[in-house]
Amino acid sequence: MTQLIAGISSHEGTQTFTSINPRTKQPGTTLFYDATPSEIDRAVRAAAEAFEETRFYPAEKLAGFLDVVADEIEALGDTLLETADWETGLGLPRLQGERGRTTGQLRKFAALLREGSYVDAIIDTATENNPDVRRMLFPIGPVGVFSASNFPFAFAVAGGDTASAFAAGCPVIVKGHPSHPATSQLFAEAIAAAVEKCGFPAGFFSLIQGNSIDVGQTLVKHPLIEVIGFTGSLRGGRAIFDTAAARPKPIPVFAEMGSVNPVIFMPEALKNRREELAASLVNSVTLGSGQFCTNPGLLFVVDNQEGRQFIQEVTELMSAAEPCVLLNAQIENGLAKAVENTRQHASIELLTGGMVEVDEYYTYASTVMHTTSENFRNDTHLQVEHFGPVTMFVTCNSLDDMRETVSTLDGNLTAAIHAEASEMKAAHTLFAVLREKVGRLIWNGFPTGVAVVPAMQHGGPYPATTAPHTTSVGMVAIQRFMRPVAFQNMPNDLLPDALKNENPLHIWRLVNWERTCEAI
Amino acid sequence: MTQLIAGISSHEGTQTFTSINPRTKQPGTTLFYDATPSEIDRAVRAAAEAFEETRFYPAEKLAGFLDVVADEIEALGDTLLETADWETGLGLPRLQGERGRTTGQLRKFAALLREGSYVDAIIDTATENNPDVRRMLFPIGPVGVFSASNFPFAFAVAGGDTASAFAAGCPVIVKGHPSHPATSQLFAEAIAAAVEKCGFPAGFFSLIQGNSIDVGQTLVKHPLIEVIGFTGSLRGGRAIFDTAAARPKPIPVFAEMGSVNPVIFMPEALKNRREELAASLVNSVTLGSGQFCTNPGLLFVVDNQEGRQFIQEVTELMSAAEPCVLLNAQIENGLAKAVENTRQHASIELLTGGMVEVDEYYTYASTVMHTTSENFRNDTHLQVEHFGPVTMFVTCNSLDDMRETVSTLDGNLTAAIHAEASEMKAAHTLFAVLREKVGRLIWNGFPTGVAVVPAMQHGGPYPATTAPHTTSVGMVAIQRFMRPVAFQNMPNDLLPDALKNENPLHIWRLVNWERTCEAI
Repeated sequence: MTQLIAGISSHEGTQTFTSINPRTKQPGTTLFYDATPSEIDRAVRAAAEAFEETRFYPAEKLAGFLDVVADEIEALGDTLLETADWETGLGLPRLQGERGRTTGQLRKFAALLREGSYVDAIIDTATENNPDVRRMLFPIGPVGVFSASNFPFAFAVAGGDTASAFAAGCPVIVKGHPSHPATSQLFAEAIAAAVEKCGFPAGFFSLIQGNSIDVGQTLVKHPLIEVIGFTGSLRGGRAIFDTAAARPKPIPVFAEMGSVNPVIFMPEALKNRREELAASLVNSVTLGSGQFCTNPGLLFVVDNQEGRQFIQEVTELMSAAEPCVLLNAQIENGLAKAVENTRQHASIELLTGGMVEVDEYYTYASTVMHTTSENFRNDTHLQVEHFGPVTMFVTCNSLDDMRETVSTLDGNLTAAIHAEASEMKAAHTLFAVLREKVGRLIWNGFPTGVAVVPAMQHGGPYPATTAPHTTSVGMVAIQRFMRPVAFQNMPNDLLPDALKNENPLHIWRLVNWERTCEAI
Repeated sequence: MTQLIAGISSHEGTQTFTSINPRTKQPGTTLFYDATPSEIDRAVRAAAEAFEETRFYPAEKLAGFLDVVADEIEALGDTLLETADWETGLGLPRLQGERGRTTGQLRKFAALLREGSYVDAIIDTATENNPDVRRMLFPIGPVGVFSASNFPFAFAVAGGDTASAFAAGCPVIVKGHPSHPATSQLFAEAIAAAVEKCGFPAGFFSLIQGNSIDVGQTLVKHPLIEVIGFTGSLRGGRAIFDTAAARPKPIPVFAEMGSVNPVIFMPEALKNRREELAASLVNSVTLGSGQFCTNPGLLFVVDNQEGRQFIQEVTELMSAAEPCVLLNAQIENGLAKAVENTRQHASIELLTGGMVEVDEYYTYASTVMHTTSENFRNDTHLQVEHFGPVTMFVTCNSLDDMRETVSTLDGNLTAAIHAEASEMKAAHTLFAVLREKVGRLIWNGFPTGVAVVPAMQHGGPYPATTAPHTTSVGMVAIQRFMRPVAFQNMPNDLLPDALKNENPLHIWRLVNWERTCEAI
């Protein structure tokens, strides 16, 4: 089908592409077609039409739909895992885990909807000076979602952006990632089946595909798209942000664009747990072939005996790491070029890796580089992400020098500190600096692994995202796709249920400055 | 002084401007100086330095500061009212009211801080599958605020943007509006006095002034500015938005850019309360010389006997309205040009006004125009704002025709319906359409007058604002200047108070999906 537009399969275009098995570099036999402007227009118009219905859906109806989407994904069974494994080379165990995360995420949003307080109802009854004013969140309209290559389930067609937009009541048009078009199709079929089973308007979901930048650009420029969700590279995210900002009517772009995720290893921690930390670190750096936006790409240690020994041990473990399979040629080439660029900076020492080891499959050697804090501070290029199993040590003269060095960091998704209890005070000082730089601070852990819980913050200052106020993982992600509306002096009968005096949904509300779930 | 940079008076520039009394068109004797790039840089660097301290301030300390700012504004006494009246021609009673609104707003944010739950704390304790994750909002960094001409107190130097940014803990650099530089100076002195009394770092507040666009552009481009608040015209807001989006590091722009605020008069309401509605409407259209972003600029009526009579009565009242004083030459010229442009559309009928009546002061005749629903639907230009005492009737053939017509509206701050109880069903249908277009829906009221309460939503889809998720009035406005950060597996001692197990601030939190103000 390639495109699934409001429940109808379509491939009008002439530009084609195929999946490529990253383990063999062999193309698949199925041809996929770049979506045409008229296909994209049909998808967006159908979404706008669907929205006229779904924007009135009660939370329970949307929750039921999310549950059915999760069921339909599970019903795809091994076909989904095998297809995705063929297209991504990520391996069945990882994909199985990611499937659980994806369906779990949908069901957690369903739970959020059933509880109901997510509409953030605020009520101020009339006073001598002020009218009765009541405010809540409503769905914002048709959403365009750009799916990522590295999480073909959890950040893709039925991933976090789609789940949270659906939860809000917004129709979604996904631009599938060209690296796994068959996987995208399977998810589209599952969602379309749920749309039909739940009696939702067919335009509530469409999948468009394409290998050309034009497909995405056409989607972003469509006047009926209200908001964009994106997970991918800084270059791709920024291009979409720029296009959205230049529209006659600019729209918000929630782009999560990756990160170098600084990890600090404090001296006492290295003294007491060096080997264990080296093993866990290498595991985190090479997880999923290093293709994580939370991959630990910058490692800060004090330049002392333990620090140097730690670097040596990590280097040895990385040298000995199993060769990895990368997702596609673009990532292999991009990584090779990025490391090559970085190595041309005189201050960079290559400790291991730094090359494509094998020709038979897409891969890159597990790579460790090193520089000094002084060089790092003087060269902003060294903050560039190397997307793959690549990391860089920055050796610092002292903890003060380290603090000064991390204060020059750009925006990141995460920062982590490994420390002993005795080092809490120094860690506190470092965290105070890092708090301005990131969305998530981690104590004695690694950044890979992003829990889908209400408190999760997966975001951060630019260039980690284009929207530092928001998160793309966790329950608060729904707010990206909702917009507040206030009602002034509205008769109770005309108010939405969430704002009625009697509080028929039994939700938590802020009433005259007090939090309550009582009626008024 | 012109500029007040981190507590120090400055006027390094050579470009000068003066206030002009709108009642006489006579310039004042004080020269004001356009801020230079080096002055702006000093202000922003001082703000960034101040932020390193204020970002750790407890809510109570920030609340105390807001109270002192309010006190200091009151201490300016009649000097403030007289200076502003001379510069704006808005009249003492209005300015007295606006002062109360401005100080009241500061004190309400202080109350919000003292209650403490505004940090939106969410806690998920560790489970078998997930780490302990805790999230809250922190101040985002130095804020640039562009002050408006039409509310020299409430949307200006110590207005809503400044109050909510201060409340968040963010330093503010205000670009004062060149229409009332002496008023801006007085507010700057009051704030600076509060900064000193409370022992805040001097860079927590600076005022820069200027008549040239370059001053604002330089501020928006400064790499240490994290966020912009703006109230003003669509052209001005869009220019700032474009500059901010094109920065190497783009930053959010919260621009509130005005609106035409459709008001619907239902047939039964006109039948029963025509005269009263005509009087209230004219009062709302001419309030503050019509220089309100919530001015009712589009009036929808059914083309029947009552509708026509209503138009005639409104036209008569508008013709008889006292001549108004406008803020400045730019607004007079802009309004004259805007009405002239609109009148060139063949479908427009001028019912009264449409000219500058007097030469002695800045003014414009109270103006009523008329078009039909069909013409309105076919000509998007007719949705342009006429900033002043100007409004336009759109006559519709029926309520169905009216619904179809309002469905073509662009984004607005507000929409209002005047109706009888018997017309609730029809009104409900219209509100359902209008909900997608606006930030606030009003029943039997006029849009002018924006209550400063937690439930207020002063915002809306573009072109009303550049940030439909946010409000610039009401307590939620603080969220524009805060950013979420999550803590993973953080020892209790390293957590901020709002996230500690024992809940020392006694705030409401979401703990493991339950709302509670208990300790864990």
